[in-house]
Amino acid sequence: MDIQELRTAHPEHWNKAAAIRALALDAVAQANSGHSGMPIGMADVATVLFEKHMKFDAAAPEWADRDRFILSAGHGSMLLYALLYLTGDAEITLDQVKNFRQMGAKTAGHPENFLAKAIETTTGPLGQGVSMAVGFAMAEETLRGQFGKNVVDHHTYVIAGDGCLMEGVSQEAIGIAGRQKLGKLIVLWDNNNITIDGTVDLSDRTDQISRFKASGWHVQEIDGHDPVAIDEAIAGAKKASKPSMIACKTHIALGHAAQDTSKGHGALTNGDQNAAAKQAWGWTAAPFDIPADIKSAWEAIGSRGAADRAEWQDRHDKLSTARQKLFGRVMDRDVPTKLSAVIKALKKQASEDKPKVATRKASEMVLEVVNPIMPETFGGSADLTGSNNTKTGGLGVFDETNRKGRYVYWGIREHGMAAAMNGMALHGGIRPYGGTFMCFTDYARPAMRLAALQQIPTVFVMTHDSIGLGEDGPTHQPVEHLAISRATPNTYVFRPADLVETAEAWEIAFSSKTTPSVLSLTRQNLPTVRTEHKTKNMTAQGAYVLAEADGKRQAILIATGSEVEIALQARDLLQAEGIGTRVVSMPCWELFEEQDEATRRRVLPAGPVRVAVEAAGRMGWDRWLCGENGNRKKAGFIGMDGFGASAPAEELYVKFGITAEATAAKVRALLSGEDTGL
Amino acid sequence: MDIQELRTAHPEHWNKAAAIRALALDAVAQANSGHSGMPIGMADVATVLFEKHMKFDAAAPEWADRDRFILSAGHGSMLLYALLYLTGDAEITLDQVKNFRQMGAKTAGHPENFLAKAIETTTGPLGQGVSMAVGFAMAEETLRGQFGKNVVDHHTYVIAGDGCLMEGVSQEAIGIAGRQKLGKLIVLWDNNNITIDGTVDLSDRTDQISRFKASGWHVQEIDGHDPVAIDEAIAGAKKASKPSMIACKTHIALGHAAQDTSKGHGALTNGDQNAAAKQAWGWTAAPFDIPADIKSAWEAIGSRGAADRAEWQDRHDKLSTARQKLFGRVMDRDVPTKLSAVIKALKKQASEDKPKVATRKASEMVLEVVNPIMPETFGGSADLTGSNNTKTGGLGVFDETNRKGRYVYWGIREHGMAAAMNGMALHGGIRPYGGTFMCFTDYARPAMRLAALQQIPTVFVMTHDSIGLGEDGPTHQPVEHLAISRATPNTYVFRPADLVETAEAWEIAFSSKTTPSVLSLTRQNLPTVRTEHKTKNMTAQGAYVLAEADGKRQAILIATGSEVEIALQARDLLQAEGIGTRVVSMPCWELFEEQDEATRRRVLPAGPVRVAVEAAGRMGWDRWLCGENGNRKKAGFIGMDGFGASAPAEELYVKFGITAEATAAKVRALLSGEDTGL
Repeated sequence: MDIQELRTAHPEHWNKAAAIRALALDAVAQANSGHSGMPIGMADVATVLFEKHMKFDAAAPEWADRDRFILSAGHGSMLLYALLYLTGDAEITLDQVKNFRQMGAKTAGHPENFLAKAIETTTGPLGQGVSMAVGFAMAEETLRGQFGKNVVDHHTYVIAGDGCLMEGVSQEAIGIAGRQKLGKLIVLWDNNNITIDGTVDLSDRTDQISRFKASGWHVQEIDGHDPVAIDEAIAGAKKASKPSMIACKTHIALGHAAQDTSKGHGALTNGDQNAAAKQAWGWTAAPFDIPADIKSAWEAIGSRGAADRAEWQDRHDKLSTARQKLFGRVMDRDVPTKLSAVIKALKKQASEDKPKVATRKASEMVLEVVNPIMPETFGGSADLTGSNNTKTGGLGVFDETNRKGRYVYWGIREHGMAAAMNGMALHGGIRPYGGTFMCFTDYARPAMRLAALQQIPTVFVMTHDSIGLGEDGPTHQPVEHLAISRATPNTYVFRPADLVETAEAWEIAFSSKTTPSVLSLTRQNLPTVRTEHKTKNMTAQGAYVLAEADGKRQAILIATGSEVEIALQARDLLQAEGIGTRVVSMPCWELFEEQDEATRRRVLPAGPVRVAVEAAGRMGWDRWLCGENGNRKKAGFIGMDGFGASAPAEELYVKFGITAEATAAKVRALLSGEDTGL
Repeated sequence: MDIQELRTAHPEHWNKAAAIRALALDAVAQANSGHSGMPIGMADVATVLFEKHMKFDAAAPEWADRDRFILSAGHGSMLLYALLYLTGDAEITLDQVKNFRQMGAKTAGHPENFLAKAIETTTGPLGQGVSMAVGFAMAEETLRGQFGKNVVDHHTYVIAGDGCLMEGVSQEAIGIAGRQKLGKLIVLWDNNNITIDGTVDLSDRTDQISRFKASGWHVQEIDGHDPVAIDEAIAGAKKASKPSMIACKTHIALGHAAQDTSKGHGALTNGDQNAAAKQAWGWTAAPFDIPADIKSAWEAIGSRGAADRAEWQDRHDKLSTARQKLFGRVMDRDVPTKLSAVIKALKKQASEDKPKVATRKASEMVLEVVNPIMPETFGGSADLTGSNNTKTGGLGVFDETNRKGRYVYWGIREHGMAAAMNGMALHGGIRPYGGTFMCFTDYARPAMRLAALQQIPTVFVMTHDSIGLGEDGPTHQPVEHLAISRATPNTYVFRPADLVETAEAWEIAFSSKTTPSVLSLTRQNLPTVRTEHKTKNMTAQGAYVLAEADGKRQAILIATGSEVEIALQARDLLQAEGIGTRVVSMPCWELFEEQDEATRRRVLPAGPVRVAVEAAGRMGWDRWLCGENGNRKKAGFIGMDGFGASAPAEELYVKFGITAEATAAKVRALLSGEDTGL
């Protein structure tokens, strides 16, 4: 690569791009940590994108109709921070750039969406950004379908690296985007042929051009250092009716001694080499210093969109008041005022009718009444629509012919579904929920964690949540997945016992602004246990007294979901023997943890024997059994201690000893001292 | 599809295939559960494969050089059970077929490798089979490289469905196989255009032919009901020097009223429709009855390989005694007798030298001495070789030019790596280990669970195991991943504190025959804490007294990995104040659980204050703090209660309060009653 030629061919472009390169080099060197090579390699692409194409206004990073920019190759975070600082973002200041990767800085090692308004997504785990981008583009299509292109009409741009394309989730994302003809999604692939272990062909020789074409993408190949080619390619991509991938042939760490090597991927901290690189770039300014003319050229780019935004505001203000209010409400993640009444009515009806239904079916019954009053909900399933019960009447199917459809067939792609849902939630205006089997939490995990970390209210509808699914056997029977979800910070894990609790769980999930929810739902039918109507959302307390002890309280049974029925039956057995037994339903550990100590003690007072019943592993239960005012000598657990088996569900419950009889026997043994507890 | 034409064109073939169809239909109908359509649709392909190509001897399902058959579309399990019963497998009898999906049957809902010798893999979670198959093929190549084609020379056949190909992990597998030119891997794709939600194009329009070609595969397209075409295609695939995919156009539930519909995917239980299907197939035998001529034709197929096996045995017996012994040892998963001595010597040296190294480096030091004496080990990393420290001198790199290489660059494919490692372990003769960052346990999860369920000793080398990795921030800092792994049945989770414990952990991991291991290793340097040499493997006890209290024992600090150092420093602070403090190192919860109660009580006696220190979430710790002979009022936890942050590691430990000072303060507060415990 002849740097001199590049410099002289397009000097103004070059200088703007060099500013990115210099900032990335300086910040990483100062932090002695980070990734220099990618920002240096992709500076030309990013410069042209922001200068010529990105619709944004640095003064209004939350403008609803801005183009979205997602740095899927999140390790190259300095590229993003440099762009934000240069264009005049109010939060990513020069001080922030200088504090790259330091305590409390907004310029974290990888972009964190919750640290600055202009950071759209948290990326770093590879493949997530490009997959979330699919959700961004779907959200845009949906909102455009609903509100019209006068208020919603923008692109989603992604910079992705080889790692993003090697991760399997990228194939799921590519497949979805191609199928759905997401023409406003444009992926710029940093085709630098370098991974951490060496050249890409050490591990992969996939022809990415053919691969994307095979899934229905528009594909172009360009020199990623030629600003004219970059400009033309992006312009071409914007015209395409398919999602577009531009393979940008670049040199990682361009102009540095580490150029085109895997060493160039990481932190370039050698002072002499860095000085030589700057010399090659013709960059003479002091570290972190951006010459005024270059800075003002960048700031002009940052303010270029102000006029667009003003025009958009005019168009927006021409919407009817009701439409404006609705648009504002869904973008703000506010729920409609009607939600509470609809949920209460359903609960009341359920307590009266006492249906015996699976909670997956109960979930559908809730969605049937909620979806009509919340146009922002968007459902789907990873090819288990009829099993997850996620599709309600009137949603319509989202595809290239119907952008108003609010249900999508995600295909057998749990991971891609979860990541795309995150993208929809991040875009705003949409409340996505999607279903698969609880056991396949495993497939969706990386995206479920990112939902929690990014503080977005994605809803994961996880049905077939225990051995209760029966014959499909241990590959499909979750035993550790409640623990997995509960162990994840900022995640509500709901395991409702009946239609009433399911309605309460959905109300919380759909009202949440910053916490994702996991709904753990049964395949098998369950009786209504909340037969006395309460307007209060009891699930919001996390755990509550469902049935009080008759006579002296000697035992407390704590159960969730399908095992609440078993606990109630065990209570009947014990009460018949004069053993006063309270049953606590505990649909959400996290919300119970949030209660004050007095509330927690009222539900779980010291003294009585405590036995938890849950058709899952014991991990975590000790906290509620022998911590939290409990006593290990008077505590027991009825659940699974290994994988399940293939057989009819009722037989499995007997085989694994999760029965009312076993629960009652455990209480008796603990009361007598024959069982010495945990 | 004109069934009559198929029947008359190749009547002998047809009858054999019809036997599979009838058994699948009968077994699913009797169980009232399962998947009828796939076995019916793929019966022709399976019949030709087994009749004309599969090298196997039904009398010896564990013959080392048999062809491997993997039913990646595991829901079609009746296809496999029918094949095994028909060919005369000793375990999958007619009674087993009749007990399909019932309690205790070997014919579980999805194939379970631990239920019958002839079942190679557990499948059902889609995409896993095809990805494990890549590992089978790599193991075959490796062993052929090591032992010669006289003893190792077989194919790996896979039947995969649309679901397998839509799951992202399939792209990782396809990429690895194409890159590595695994010419003996042959995937038969059941191209029936049906998923559970409807036709494939509802969710995907990927041109699979182009997609596989893009990754370097040999691809053919055939009519999957034409036995001649099937035979020719498999013959062609065997000749190709690349991995081969045969797109078999089939009709799901061929000849049934549900043919070509998503209803045909599930359980076909309508008696009239099933009778009509049998009539269309020309099948007049009673349910579960196979006419004698057809059964004996199938049994001839089952015994066809006996001669091959005898010849193989002759060739095998011509190996030198030492080579025969080695081959037998590695296939039996036995460790070399030298292993114990090598580990002891390393431990002794470490206790003397007291190196201050990261446990990821310690792991490399162990592998440097173990890999040379265990030719069956096979290392790799998901593009983090230099960070995971998984590559030791002299392993050589596995690729198409060097099948003796024992290290592979897996690429940025944690999931594909984990699944392929499972395949290698299942094949036998190989002990795979592979590295990524602990946080990316998330990506590998579905395969890690299958390692546990399948009872295979895959080793997952998970480095950068806490906030101790520093600046990369919360996307890369595990906080819930120890809990996730610990919650999984049949999994050893090791978090060693120094080189000595790391050596002990590796000894257990490499000696395990039926349990996978997760090694949770630090990025940051740690001092040697086991400074007194013990020949006994203390890690095998799960937890043990590392430092005894001086004077009256008032406190027990329990720590793992990098926090053992902190616990020891806290002990120094407390002892200086006269507070007798024991430090328990607890590198493996699961092994501690396996100890008898007396041992557990010796390590964790009742009485003293207990504080656990671990730079991760609290999930599960209550068991060791207030259960297990503990007392909630005298128990505390020092760790994380949310996600981490981006900053230098030392600062993060202070920020999150995981320090010796905080630990000592917690002990003091608990002793004084100021802190009321958990």
